[in-house]
Order: sequence, then structure tokens, then C-alpha cells
Amino acid sequence: MRVVVALGGNALLRRGEPMTAANQRRNSELAARALVDLAREHELIITHGNGPQVGLLALQSLAYEDVEPYPLDVLGAESGGMIGYMIEQELDTLLDHQKPCVTLLTQVEVDLNDPAFKNPTKFIGPVYSKEEAEGLAKARGWHVKQDGDKWRRVVPSPLPKRIFDTKVVELLLKNGVVVICGGGGGIPVTFASDGELIGVEAVIDKDRVGALLAEEVHADAYLILTDTDAIYEDWGTPRQRAIKHSSPESLKAYTFPAGSMGPKVEAACAFAASTGQRAVIGSLDKALAVLKGESGTVISKTFKGISYYE
Amino acid sequence: MRVVVALGGNALLRRGEPMTAANQRRNSELAARALVDLAREHELIITHGNGPQVGLLALQSLAYEDVEPYPLDVLGAESGGMIGYMIEQELDTLLDHQKPCVTLLTQVEVDLNDPAFKNPTKFIGPVYSKEEAEGLAKARGWHVKQDGDKWRRVVPSPLPKRIFDTKVVELLLKNGVVVICGGGGGIPVTFASDGELIGVEAVIDKDRVGALLAEEVHADAYLILTDTDAIYEDWGTPRQRAIKHSSPESLKAYTFPAGSMGPKVEAACAFAASTGQRAVIGSLDKALAVLKGESGTVISKTFKGISYYE
Repeated sequence: MRVVVALGGNALLRRGEPMTAANQRRNSELAARALVDLAREHELIITHGNGPQVGLLALQSLAYEDVEPYPLDVLGAESGGMIGYMIEQELDTLLDHQKPCVTLLTQVEVDLNDPAFKNPTKFIGPVYSKEEAEGLAKARGWHVKQDGDKWRRVVPSPLPKRIFDTKVVELLLKNGVVVICGGGGGIPVTFASDGELIGVEAVIDKDRVGALLAEEVHADAYLILTDTDAIYEDWGTPRQRAIKHSSPESLKAYTFPAGSMGPKVEAACAFAASTGQRAVIGSLDKALAVLKGESGTVISKTFKGISYYE
Repeated sequence: MRVVVALGGNALLRRGEPMTAANQRRNSELAARALVDLAREHELIITHGNGPQVGLLALQSLAYEDVEPYPLDVLGAESGGMIGYMIEQELDTLLDHQKPCVTLLTQVEVDLNDPAFKNPTKFIGPVYSKEEAEGLAKARGWHVKQDGDKWRRVVPSPLPKRIFDTKVVELLLKNGVVVICGGGGGIPVTFASDGELIGVEAVIDKDRVGALLAEEVHADAYLILTDTDAIYEDWGTPRQRAIKHSSPESLKAYTFPAGSMGPKVEAACAFAASTGQRAVIGSLDKALAVLKGESGTVISKTFKGISYYE
């Protein structure tokens, strides 16, 4: 089977955890362990978020005052190198070098008229108190928003229009190569009026890029792997129930929180609706069971209504 | 023809120039313009240095004191993402998207017993005055050395032993893909005693990695492109003469400056001696003429003695 997995940037640097290389390495190893069976048995693309990492790189770039801060597209490319390397290295060890695994940078076209540029929603970097966040917003011209009980910087997160080099990704998959690509939602680019390809200051949502990537490479399944085991109805209330199986159509009746489960559900539904294949949202720790439909929330076009876990 | 090009990190951020993203972009465009004909007409691998860039990333990482500094292997991976992205983007425009161009991260095995770990020689980051450099060495535990009329940080630069995923690179070349890889000399890694692949704090010389890469993919030519038009005999003296053609054997009689032309000549000779194919050291601006042997210094195993430009 051909499978695309989207991994949260938070799976690699957990919320509130010091953003050290050592922590990132440890989490990369855990992610690689969770994915190695998929990598061995299937044609696998791994894509991943970069929220915490690109935020860290932005802070590092700001802190060194001798050189003006680097733009978000370049920082995104840096984060793709950093994260891809760590996952690739861990997978190489776990695969015992029996299957090649490569990291590819990915440019992704966005539309400068996307409403996201007027309403930044993508959280990046560390969490702050409200006072800290408001101070930073004033000092640096950041947009900040509340994220749970803390505050964080937000940047525009436009929809992906086109992913470059998906034919190359398909060539690699067909030849038994595990491909890490589309990291951090890919590097946002657009065409200038003279046709020149240029970078854009944004961070594309990795779940949407994963969905588009899965569609373009004709994946049999798209897995969004995170730290929750399923989509829940009435989450956080005494009535909460884990959804086992549903369809894009049935899920339209629900709203899920923006900035966390919302974009995942939207991306999964987009893939399921446009391809007829299944998308599953589930726990990274149970990746193989998620692929088999034994864990997580399966979203498929032909399913009627909603079923729940007991 | 199958051609490997090695590009100096200084070609992308010139010595003494402010290390801004804008300057890097402009230089990347110049490099891409110099290489686009090669990319169109041949199977092309582009590898590049990262001395200025990895030094900048190290300084940025140090400057943000909330998180401990990142190690050189991870910074190397970041620099590979940053530089690869910029070159790839410029080439995509110049190739008018008629030929795919991808950037691949590359892990390169080094030997922890390499003498380079006891004698750091690779210049990274910006140039400093002697006093500044000595102060930084004391404060941060850096090694610093004189580089021309200025001083810079130096890090270990071990020889590459093995490049990962060269089979994947060959697959891409065969299928008409321009490949940017081995950036910054690749990411230095080694095997821990338990067989686990781990990163190493070093910066591998990109000319040596280019030579090994060219050998492993059976390149017809290895071009080291820089800002000088040839190797010179008696450089900097009234007797200086540009060498037109020579052999690894004949060049043994000469010593070239360590840290600049020395490693390039060694790498070019290593490739020419072990493969019987030609290596050429020449000017980036004349890449196509360099490939044709009409410009630059050609090094080939079968050439007798040394010939000079008029």
C-alpha cells in the first residue's frame, strides 16, 4: 500500500518542553519507532509539522542582532533540514539500512490573495504568558493569540495550491525509497508577476499539505498521527465519545477547535472526499493499527453516519 | 554526460559581505545562472559548501540563550535546507520548470579517529579582528585561526568515508532530475558502538565529499567551481602562471594553501587518480567552458607534466 503520514510538529518538540536538540532527537526516535513497521511494509511518505521548530529558528535569528532576521520561507527550509535529518537518521538505524530513506525539500505554491494573510492563525514557537506575548507583539510586530491556557505567536497559514516535484516523490516510492518531504507544510512560494518563483512569509498547514500530497501521489490511505487516539464528539464534556468511523458529509455537522483538531479533520475530509480513499486520524503510538482501521477515527466517503468506540 | 559540480559556500555568501538572506538569494541566483546550461544539457549534481552559513546558524543559536546551542550536525542539516532551497528555487525559475530539480539531505560517515578532530581547520562564520577572535575563543571554547588578513572560528573537518543514498541520487539522475545534495559537505555522522547512527560535531570539506560523490555515481567529470579561474603556480608572485592541464602525479610537487586552494587540488586529484576521469578547477562564471576544458585547470591521470595558459 501507498501511505502518507502527517506527524505533528508537537510530536517532535512537545508543548512546554525545552526546545533542545536532545529533546528533539529523543522525540524523533520515538516517532521513528512508531513508524518503522509502516516504513518496512509499505510505500511510505512522512510529512511533519514545524510549528515549535520554525518558531525557535525565528527567535534565534532575531537574537543575533548583527544580521537582520531571516524570512519565514528560509527558516521553514532550515526547519525541514533539521527535522528531516533527525527522523531520517533514526529510521536508518531502525531499518538497519535495509531500505533507503531520504529527506527532500518541498516547495509549495500558495496564493497571496488567500484570506489567511489577513488573519494569521498558525501557532509557532514557544508558549508565553499573556503579558509576555503582548509585550513581544508590540516590540516585534508579531501577531499573538491564545493557545489553550498560554499565548503564542501566530503567522499566516495559507492553503497549499500546488506541490512541486510530486512526480519525483512517486519515482522514489516506486523504487522502494521511504520519503520524508513536505516538512513544516513545505516551503511557501509563489510566482512573481515576471514568472519568477519567490518565497512567501507564511507557514502552510502540514495536514493540508499532507492531504494534497496523498491525493497527488494516489495514496491508498492518509494518516494524520497525533497524541490523541481519535476525534471526539463533545470533547471535554461528560458526554464525550470517540468516533470510530464517519464520512466527510457526516462530519460537516460538527465544529472542531481551530488551531488543533479542526485543521486535521478538514484535511482528512478533503482527502477522503476527493479521492474516495480513507483518511484516519489517530495516535502516533498505534500507527500500524491506525492504518488497519483498528484504532483512530476512519473517515471515508461511502460510510453512512457516525459510529463510535464503546 | 554526468557531471558533479562543487560550489564554494563563499560563492553564496561572499567574504565580508553582510550575511543576510537577501545577499544569499542574490548570490544563489548568480550561481543558478552560471549552472543552468549544465543543468539543461547534462545529468547534474550540485554540491555546495556552507562555511559562512553554518557559522551564522551557530551564532544565531548561541545568541538565543533560552535554549542551549544546537550541535554542528543539526546546524549543518539546517544550512543544507536553507542553501539548497535557495539554489533550487532559482534553478526552477531559470529552467522554466521544464526539468525537476530537488534538494536531498545527505548523511556522510566520518571516522572519529580522523586526525582532523585534534586539529580543527575548517573556517566557519564571519571574519573577526584578531582581538575579537581571541576573546570569542576564550569565552566560548572556540578554536580560531587566521584566514587571510582576518581571523575566524575553525572546526574539525574530517574526511568523508561513505556517502549515504548515492543509489537514490543515481536513480534521480537517470530520470532527468537535477540533484542538489551533499550540501555543506553533507551531515557528518558515525556509528555508535551499538550500531546506532549518530551525528558528529564537524563540518566535512565539500570538495572531498564532491569528489567521493562523483566517484560513487560514476561521473564523467568533477568540476570545482570557485571565484578564481584556475590553479596558479607561484601564486601571488611576479612569476605566477595559470595551469591549463596537469595530472595528480605532477601536482604532487606543489603545495597549495591549506583552507583555500589546497583542499580543492587534493579533492580534484583524488577523483582524477581513482577514476581516470577528469576534474577541473575553474571559475563559476564559466561553468560550461570549464566542463569543455576551455577554461580552468584540467586534472587528468594520463596527462604528462604541466601545461600553462599564455
